[in-house]
Amino acid sequence: MEIINIFYYLAVILIFAKVFGLIARKIGLPQVAGMVVAGVLIGLMGYLNDPDNFFLSFFIKPDAEEMDILHVFAQIGVVLILFSSGLETNLQDLKKSGGSAFLIALAGVIVPMFLGTVGTLLFMNGYSDFNSDKFLNAIFVGTILAATSVGITAETLKELGKLNGKVGQTIMSAAIIDDVIGIIALSIVTSLRSGGAAQIGMTLLRALGFFVFAIGVGILLRIYFKWEEHKFPHKRRTSIFAFGMCFLFAFVAEKFFGIASITGAYLAGIMLSGLDDTNFVDRKVIVSGYMIFTPIFFSYIGISADFSGFNISYLLFALTFVALGIIGKIIGCGLTAKPFGFTNKESVTVGCGMIARGEVALAVYSAGRSLIMPEGGIDPLVATIFLIVISSIVCPILLKLLFKDKKEGLPLEEKQQ
Amino acid sequence: MEIINIFYYLAVILIFAKVFGLIARKIGLPQVAGMVVAGVLIGLMGYLNDPDNFFLSFFIKPDAEEMDILHVFAQIGVVLILFSSGLETNLQDLKKSGGSAFLIALAGVIVPMFLGTVGTLLFMNGYSDFNSDKFLNAIFVGTILAATSVGITAETLKELGKLNGKVGQTIMSAAIIDDVIGIIALSIVTSLRSGGAAQIGMTLLRALGFFVFAIGVGILLRIYFKWEEHKFPHKRRTSIFAFGMCFLFAFVAEKFFGIASITGAYLAGIMLSGLDDTNFVDRKVIVSGYMIFTPIFFSYIGISADFSGFNISYLLFALTFVALGIIGKIIGCGLTAKPFGFTNKESVTVGCGMIARGEVALAVYSAGRSLIMPEGGIDPLVATIFLIVISSIVCPILLKLLFKDKKEGLPLEEKQQ
Repeated sequence: MEIINIFYYLAVILIFAKVFGLIARKIGLPQVAGMVVAGVLIGLMGYLNDPDNFFLSFFIKPDAEEMDILHVFAQIGVVLILFSSGLETNLQDLKKSGGSAFLIALAGVIVPMFLGTVGTLLFMNGYSDFNSDKFLNAIFVGTILAATSVGITAETLKELGKLNGKVGQTIMSAAIIDDVIGIIALSIVTSLRSGGAAQIGMTLLRALGFFVFAIGVGILLRIYFKWEEHKFPHKRRTSIFAFGMCFLFAFVAEKFFGIASITGAYLAGIMLSGLDDTNFVDRKVIVSGYMIFTPIFFSYIGISADFSGFNISYLLFALTFVALGIIGKIIGCGLTAKPFGFTNKESVTVGCGMIARGEVALAVYSAGRSLIMPEGGIDPLVATIFLIVISSIVCPILLKLLFKDKKEGLPLEEKQQ
Repeated sequence: MEIINIFYYLAVILIFAKVFGLIARKIGLPQVAGMVVAGVLIGLMGYLNDPDNFFLSFFIKPDAEEMDILHVFAQIGVVLILFSSGLETNLQDLKKSGGSAFLIALAGVIVPMFLGTVGTLLFMNGYSDFNSDKFLNAIFVGTILAATSVGITAETLKELGKLNGKVGQTIMSAAIIDDVIGIIALSIVTSLRSGGAAQIGMTLLRALGFFVFAIGVGILLRIYFKWEEHKFPHKRRTSIFAFGMCFLFAFVAEKFFGIASITGAYLAGIMLSGLDDTNFVDRKVIVSGYMIFTPIFFSYIGISADFSGFNISYLLFALTFVALGIIGKIIGCGLTAKPFGFTNKESVTVGCGMIARGEVALAVYSAGRSLIMPEGGIDPLVATIFLIVISSIVCPILLKLLFKDKKEGLPLEEKQQ
């Protein structure tokens, strides 16, 4: 380990990730996809390196400890993404369109998860030699299909000027809620590892325990932050203490309750949402994220990707995975929307609005990757990248076609380039 | 190494550092001093930990690899501080008060460095068994005395409303210039290690080589950034690419020229100073810094401090060190100011305005600590903390007394709490 090398990795990753992110955006893909591709390229360049001659190397390959350090940065990146999502959650809006959106989101999690799990089991030679490790690997793959990308969904609806209509509002609420359900599902799946399916009661109990902790301690801290923002509005200390709370919740979730650390960060964000200084804090979180941690998160996924298992049969799996992920959302969300007073076309639109996947799918992947069987398992990373790229192309196209007739709401500017 | 533990360290360090920083500010000390003290306390708490029972521990002690990770964060913190200083350098102002300020700064570096080196050699049993390792240790201690804290100086002058007068302007320019001279001195001292005093020609050549590289590549990148800020003003990409450039310069400086990485970051900042988007970038650097990296930098110094050598003789050394640091600046800068048309009182004021030390002294310490002899050497860390605390109390008091009669300039708000 050489500390000075870290500066090199940071420079290369930041520049590559941003350049490929911008290229992706240019050709109509989300930046996230470009950053993952940048990571894959950096990882491949690592194989071309000549350890004895820096100038003959395309990229110095990080040693094990240096990779650990990049991993820490990546973990902080994903924790910041979820903390920011939590901060931006509008609990009032959620309550309003809550009932229908909740059921739509729930169906949109269960159907793709079920389809993904069954599909993966079929690819792992079916039920004939069903066993617990296999099942965990398969249900983990299914869980990746759970969460819609709020970012991509919001961007598409903004571009179409449909963010504030009835359909748009329902899609947005359901997309936010399925993040929560997806993360809870991941927590349950991850903690199953330790004790098999019999542990499920214990796991739910621990999840409940963490929610009680998070809400209890969260309310006390919220009172403190309310006092602080009135006495010292817009001070650095508020953001720094909020950061501290985020990291503390992430730590406590995983250390004492066996729940994924991103769940802790997300709940920390929700507990601080809707305060006067919430936007102030969120801006600092976003800046700290995009300046260094989130590009590393997305690239790290690519850098650490293992393509050695890629072949025709994996390609078939990946395409099935993508198809199930898209069909599962349209069926699950669309059919559930129907009884809530949506027309047939509107129901299909709600379903199509939920198919985009993005950063949360990668977050779920990176939190649960230890569930992949070391031998004979299926690593869904490449399939997940396919899913993100394809779903974020397909989602805007379908929405544009379905929304073609009437306009509601106003397009907003986007300045994230 | 457990990644989840990192979240715990981050939470504890951020919260402690900010709380102690605020306490320090409350009692009239710079926040930096409070953050270092927070680190010392965290380090001491580590000794009270019970590795088998989290709840009986005051603080889980980081293992070796976890300390390495904190060290990386600390290094990024100091690089960001210097990058930001570089960005904020106003080359036009420097040119204006340049001649006199440069000589005042130079004398203010040479006199305390000389006094500090000689003083340290005396504490190491004098010249009788003079050898090269000893001399390096001593000159390293002297180098810590070189750089005035621009931050503390600026804050004091702002509070007194003297930032824009002739005396204030000269102090500010000289304080900025002595950062550069101090960092160059450190680069030379650090690189001496490899080959002893005979290497000095080679070292100056490498320093020159790096300056040629930094200015050459820097001008090309500056042209690129100028093009970018006109075509895409105020975009995230500008800040991210600037970050990339900062890390690249830090890496190249140390890896290929044997110059301290902070020198590289500082020069990267200077090469991007004065552009339309410089302030935009600087704000992102500052936010990324204070949200996570710089509190870790200041605390890490305290956490990794070794107090086992602290005794009466060290206390004597520390007090001598502080006294030489203060007297050296007053004599060096004051005497040099006299011939440039300052009255006796104004010359003393210039000297007193230069005595505050802060983050750059700690940066120099952390960049050069490997020069401390493993046996029989003097580790100036505790003395440096004394120096920062005492000089930042003494400097404002002396300036207030000397400036008592007339007012120039206007006080500015400060919102860094």
